[in-house]
Amino acid sequence: MDFSAQQIATFVQGEIVGDANATVNTFAKIEEGKPGCITFLANPKYAHYIYDTEASIVLVNRDFVPEKPIKATLIKVDNAYETLAKLMMLYEQSKTQDKGIASTAVIAESAQVGKDVFIGAYVVIDEGAVIGDNTSIYPHTYVGKNVRIGDSSIIYSGVNIYHDCQIGNHVILHSGVVIGADGFGFAPTPEGYNKIPQIGNVIIEDNVEIGANTCVDRATMGSTIIHKGVKLDNLIQVAHNVVVGANTVMAAQVGIAGSAKLGEWCVIAGQVGISGHLNIGNHVTLGPKTGILSSIQDGKTLIGSLPAEGKAWFRQQALVKKLPDMYRELNALRKELDELKKDKTN
Amino acid sequence: MDFSAQQIATFVQGEIVGDANATVNTFAKIEEGKPGCITFLANPKYAHYIYDTEASIVLVNRDFVPEKPIKATLIKVDNAYETLAKLMMLYEQSKTQDKGIASTAVIAESAQVGKDVFIGAYVVIDEGAVIGDNTSIYPHTYVGKNVRIGDSSIIYSGVNIYHDCQIGNHVILHSGVVIGADGFGFAPTPEGYNKIPQIGNVIIEDNVEIGANTCVDRATMGSTIIHKGVKLDNLIQVAHNVVVGANTVMAAQVGIAGSAKLGEWCVIAGQVGISGHLNIGNHVTLGPKTGILSSIQDGKTLIGSLPAEGKAWFRQQALVKKLPDMYRELNALRKELDELKKDKTN
Amino acid sequence: MDFSAQQIATFVQGEIVGDANATVNTFAKIEEGKPGCITFLANPKYAHYIYDTEASIVLVNRDFVPEKPIKATLIKVDNAYETLAKLMMLYEQSKTQDKGIASTAVIAESAQVGKDVFIGAYVVIDEGAVIGDNTSIYPHTYVGKNVRIGDSSIIYSGVNIYHDCQIGNHVILHSGVVIGADGFGFAPTPEGYNKIPQIGNVIIEDNVEIGANTCVDRATMGSTIIHKGVKLDNLIQVAHNVVVGANTVMAAQVGIAGSAKLGEWCVIAGQVGISGHLNIGNHVTLGPKTGILSSIQDGKTLIGSLPAEGKAWFRQQALVKKLPDMYRELNALRKELDELKKDKTN
Repeated sequence: MDFSAQQIATFVQGEIVGDANATVNTFAKIEEGKPGCITFLANPKYAHYIYDTEASIVLVNRDFVPEKPIKATLIKVDNAYETLAKLMMLYEQSKTQDKGIASTAVIAESAQVGKDVFIGAYVVIDEGAVIGDNTSIYPHTYVGKNVRIGDSSIIYSGVNIYHDCQIGNHVILHSGVVIGADGFGFAPTPEGYNKIPQIGNVIIEDNVEIGANTCVDRATMGSTIIHKGVKLDNLIQVAHNVVVGANTVMAAQVGIAGSAKLGEWCVIAGQVGISGHLNIGNHVTLGPKTGILSSIQDGKTLIGSLPAEGKAWFRQQALVKKLPDMYRELNALRKELDELKKDKTN
Repeated sequence: MDFSAQQIATFVQGEIVGDANATVNTFAKIEEGKPGCITFLANPKYAHYIYDTEASIVLVNRDFVPEKPIKATLIKVDNAYETLAKLMMLYEQSKTQDKGIASTAVIAESAQVGKDVFIGAYVVIDEGAVIGDNTSIYPHTYVGKNVRIGDSSIIYSGVNIYHDCQIGNHVILHSGVVIGADGFGFAPTPEGYNKIPQIGNVIIEDNVEIGANTCVDRATMGSTIIHKGVKLDNLIQVAHNVVVGANTVMAAQVGIAGSAKLGEWCVIAGQVGISGHLNIGNHVTLGPKTGILSSIQDGKTLIGSLPAEGKAWFRQQALVKKLPDMYRELNALRKELDELKKDKTN
Repeated sequence: MDFSAQQIATFVQGEIVGDANATVNTFAKIEEGKPGCITFLANPKYAHYIYDTEASIVLVNRDFVPEKPIKATLIKVDNAYETLAKLMMLYEQSKTQDKGIASTAVIAESAQVGKDVFIGAYVVIDEGAVIGDNTSIYPHTYVGKNVRIGDSSIIYSGVNIYHDCQIGNHVILHSGVVIGADGFGFAPTPEGYNKIPQIGNVIIEDNVEIGANTCVDRATMGSTIIHKGVKLDNLIQVAHNVVVGANTVMAAQVGIAGSAKLGEWCVIAGQVGISGHLNIGNHVTLGPKTGILSSIQDGKTLIGSLPAEGKAWFRQQALVKKLPDMYRELNALRKELDELKKDKTN
């Protein structure tokens, strides 16, 4: 579907500079622009690309003043980046939605399925499960017994949801996500480990998105809880009885051990590990690969395998690099000092 | 299904304090207790919760003496925690087991399936595979050619088992587990890497449990072996030709590189990495995120990205924090010493 | 299928020492050799195994001179290891290939499927997808709308490929791989994070192999690109808009953050993390668990959570172990110096 610069400018209340009839049908980064693409310029660092881009239309901020002629049609708006994101969202929403229930989906008689759903080929929905309105479930996903999924959620292909777990509204689960596998609980005996039954569940609140192949284990008792608005990237481990506060985001490959409680609006970078039974406050930021062995108060920013607050960590790390020099200097000092003392006693 | 305090006390040989007719139908932590729940108090740290808990029954140790009146019915037993675990196991066992073979399961003619199995919707069992008695296989799992699975094992939904692998008795594989994918073996040439065929298999012995999305690669030649009683958490990587000794446990996101051999009864914390071709002894404990670059003798406890034995590591880490002070002090020393020497020579 | 020493020696242009009629039907490591196995000796470290091995045939280099009698038949060749790899490849190729399309595969009418393919039970191929000649797709794999897969590729069971992604020729994707899930892009607002649509795709070029449960996210705009010959191990995260150069290899559990560009022929060890928007040159080697926070020039070798070049890192790490001694020495120095100064002023 093609859109003209004129149509877009009207929609975003922008001002056209150039050919109002230029048309586009997709999006591109400014450095990868091709004819038929719309792109944007927000960061001045990328400004030099605008003079050569082959994109047909470029969204720019109203204060942008070109230094040379530009081939593309410009549309000036208040905030080029936000406008682009808005157009991308519209583009996504304009796609035809999959609807209907595939003939090969196996839906237990005691399961309930809402209105206007999409249920793809070979989906299995087990006894007592409830699926809300407008929810989409892609091929090969398994929805266990008595699972509840809310309205307008998207469950991609190959997701596995164990019995009794609850998924809210407007939730997105990507392929390979496993919700509600047994927590890792064993009691040692002289002959080996005995399994401690994991009879709790997982509760995922509204507006949560969970990335591909991420695992959220069921609670031993009670619930592992992912509060509303949380965004988890791919390949993350959330152990049993963990609670993740609202609007906390985690990058890929983070691991949260059992019964840890995270606050709201935390930002956890990739490959971070958090030990069990800790309390992490609200608005905590953890840098990449940080390993957390003790609880953290609200608002702290930590980084490193031995975490320190922001600046302190960078200073420490700089000094680790100087350690060989320090060590050499220290030995020299000791030697000179000993000579000084010897002179003195002579 | 409801149970009365009287029934439970009789079963666990406990002594009732309070209403013998109180009934429960599920379990809870003491701080989350609700009417109809049974809970337990073992750790004195949590004792203050018992006076306010809404749980109907609390298991306590025989020596527990309340300081205030308690609303809940108490059952005094020798070991409150162990008794609870026993009751949870009974509760799990009392659930109706899935049995039978779904009409949509595809079982090759040359495959053999034992008695009293459960094989769920859309399971695929390929040629020559053998499934033991009482084993359950949940929807969408793929069992490759000539795979052997023993008795009383549980394979959850969406598991993939490549050809020729062997799974023992009483094994549990959680959703998304991949057993027997090719080991990572390539021979460099000037034009690119040539694949080295991975013609071995994976052997998983009895009583092993493997967490969601964990991968155990097939051997180049011979077998990758997970010995009996091993417990692996989620998202773990076990590379080709690794051997994991009996009753070793690993927390989530651990990575074991090719041909490493781990002993028995090791405890490996989350996100640990072990390099290839190492020998890790028996009863070795590795702290979270530890990176292991050389072999380890029996009984050692190591932690850290540059691993050191327990106490030494904590001391080193404390000093890393003091490095900026050390560096400042060192420079001061040098300066004062130089002045001292100058004075002396004048 | 059995082969005699005579047949193998003729094929590999080797020289037989011992029984030319010895037969083998599989491969083994020299220390695990059994009758009927062929094995090899390349590394002199393993030479002592050759005198006791039960293997029927051992490939050795032409210059190998035994110190004691050997029971096995030897075949002398120019390069024992390369010859074995060649034989293993032949062995793999001699296996019967699965062919045909399972009756339970769901292939959309608008999808195109090439010649001589294998499409297993319950595979779902969505609208507009194109599958090349000689490609194999194992059970439960989902191929999204408009996905293109080239010729002679192998997609194992339980793989999920999102819409519009492109897979080249001679590509291998192992079970649980997720290609084209949404990149992790959100815009913060006071009420929570808004999703930034991810409308790009993933392009995987020829001769790429991707390990079990690895995730490659689709680009926000444009493409996440895995260039030809790249080999990715299991449980790796490749974020949106990443570009991985030709013939780069990555061990398990590596994480590459968004928009990072990696060069050709890099070697990335296990559990490495690379931050977003960095440029990693060609022929870069990164040691296990290394965390990369800034761009790297061609040809560098780095290791450590605070990466340093090879030798420097090992020196630093050795000194971290000596930190307690340094600290004690430093305090002693200060004390002695202060006394010296006091003496002087008296």
